[in-house]
Amino acid sequence: MKKILNDVHGAVNDMLHGFNFEYKAIIGYDRENDIIYRKNLSELEEVVLISGGGSGHEPAHFGYVGEGMLSMAVCGQIFMPPKPEQIAAAIRMVDKGKSILLIIKNFQADIDSFLAAEAVMKQEGWMVDHVIVNDDVSVEDDHSFKKRRRGVAGTVLVHKILGAAAMDGYTLPQLKALGEVVISKLHTLGVALSPANNPASQEEPFMLGDDEVFYGIGIHGEGGYRKEVFHSSEMLAIELMNKLKSLYRWKKGEAFAVLVNGLGAVPLMEQYVFANDIRRLCELEGLDIRFVKVGSQLTSLDMKGISLSLLKIEDPMWEKWLQRDVKTASWK
Amino acid sequence: MKKILNDVHGAVNDMLHGFNFEYKAIIGYDRENDIIYRKNLSELEEVVLISGGGSGHEPAHFGYVGEGMLSMAVCGQIFMPPKPEQIAAAIRMVDKGKSILLIIKNFQADIDSFLAAEAVMKQEGWMVDHVIVNDDVSVEDDHSFKKRRRGVAGTVLVHKILGAAAMDGYTLPQLKALGEVVISKLHTLGVALSPANNPASQEEPFMLGDDEVFYGIGIHGEGGYRKEVFHSSEMLAIELMNKLKSLYRWKKGEAFAVLVNGLGAVPLMEQYVFANDIRRLCELEGLDIRFVKVGSQLTSLDMKGISLSLLKIEDPMWEKWLQRDVKTASWK
Repeated sequence: MKKILNDVHGAVNDMLHGFNFEYKAIIGYDRENDIIYRKNLSELEEVVLISGGGSGHEPAHFGYVGEGMLSMAVCGQIFMPPKPEQIAAAIRMVDKGKSILLIIKNFQADIDSFLAAEAVMKQEGWMVDHVIVNDDVSVEDDHSFKKRRRGVAGTVLVHKILGAAAMDGYTLPQLKALGEVVISKLHTLGVALSPANNPASQEEPFMLGDDEVFYGIGIHGEGGYRKEVFHSSEMLAIELMNKLKSLYRWKKGEAFAVLVNGLGAVPLMEQYVFANDIRRLCELEGLDIRFVKVGSQLTSLDMKGISLSLLKIEDPMWEKWLQRDVKTASWK
Repeated sequence: MKKILNDVHGAVNDMLHGFNFEYKAIIGYDRENDIIYRKNLSELEEVVLISGGGSGHEPAHFGYVGEGMLSMAVCGQIFMPPKPEQIAAAIRMVDKGKSILLIIKNFQADIDSFLAAEAVMKQEGWMVDHVIVNDDVSVEDDHSFKKRRRGVAGTVLVHKILGAAAMDGYTLPQLKALGEVVISKLHTLGVALSPANNPASQEEPFMLGDDEVFYGIGIHGEGGYRKEVFHSSEMLAIELMNKLKSLYRWKKGEAFAVLVNGLGAVPLMEQYVFANDIRRLCELEGLDIRFVKVGSQLTSLDMKGISLSLLKIEDPMWEKWLQRDVKTASWK
């Protein structure tokens, strides 16, 4: 599998350099700890939002650093969370007079790293708390109804809402509480047409026939809950909407936000065709769609696939916060 | 080749519906003529910019419709230009008191369509003129030095600069003259790691070995000028920069803008790694890089590949116009 890389072990470093080349006017890059940060750190809101995780999910998370969203993204190696020392170094860049909210995707290795850093930095006198995003509602396998609850594409909506609320002066406890409510109303399901090819791993990706799709895949090459022959965008949309309907048990007229996320190698044409099928299904269900975002926001290297996130909008402010303009590379 | 589509003949329509679902607050969609337009048409600048072309190049061009860039994008079928009637319908939406600049990519079929519409509409009393973007400087084959001069990714920079100048009150003749100077300083070269798979065509795409790259490819599946074994991002960067150097014959300290464009199925990680190699080569050459953009701007369906565009900045205003904020879906 050809990849436009040099030494694979230097890929994250090369990538972050390249990103800094594009945005050096507004973004800083700490090479030692692979941290992308807003340059005007001293002008930040009272609560500083820090996220991050393994690389290979671009533009997440560094593309969401900027006014109105994240203040920093701490970048691990490909599909590996950042080390606690990297996260601690990010926290150390923040004035002790401010407080810090960590936004963590629900993978054990990510939680271990972020919470280890949180514990150390609290001891050193920083005010730190966290939320854990667990929007993935795909099931473990056909015979189990255990949800996986990984943190996937919906995380970007959490960045957006909390980033806007932080601008509005929300305190750390308020942001944590808001994050937890939003996350409880946020569900995502993904489907793959091809696996991700991880250049840093010798492991074989999952197998998928030329005519098959795999429902419920993860963002690190994890397999899904069911393989099926691929028919059309509409059939994918129906499967994902039906699963989400059974979770939300929505009623006509309820307000939702929609995120259609390309998983890395899906052209925008296909993402928009799928979004159009979601539009039609939402109309049939009588849902009141208040916000829509389509694009490759949180990816899995070169996986061909798509995910659908829905957020039940419980508070009209959520819609306003989603719509507010921001100054980041990747939230348009 | 699985594609997230329904009926392939309805794909463009489905896609534009999906796009309109996302941006219906600011974007209108004429279903009959596949035109995406700014909703506040009556508030437009004195010169209205219209572009478009075949579909399959998303987000070009509809992603660049909005304040500060295009007023309308007219969308053909996959890799087919819009018909003259579609373009005429777009022009007809504009108040006769304004004038119109068509931005056309240099393909004979595109030129035929756009100029036919221009001729008809001039007769009907509209003020219309055009520029033709021909930034592609790949050579025909190894044994010829004839440049192809197709209109490719650099077109997006033309949209951006002319869109900003139109906001600043440039007249139609001024915009045409500005466009022609910018285009003369704008060169692009592309390389493919895999061909595009066009679902609307029975033609076999070009063949490429598992370990090969193809320099000088086009955006409609056209083959390039040389196949080579793939080594690394850096080797691609050196090949493209050397070709561009021989054209520009630049001197140390000269000012350039850089556009690194993913051709559809290349993850952002690889685009940024390549951008970092370009950064290093620009430093070695002593070029003064004033503007950088990285991302999938003008694609070729699911082609895996990348293009490099350079624009020699002859006037400091060009830099300002490139940097000015816009309200479009896809220029961030």
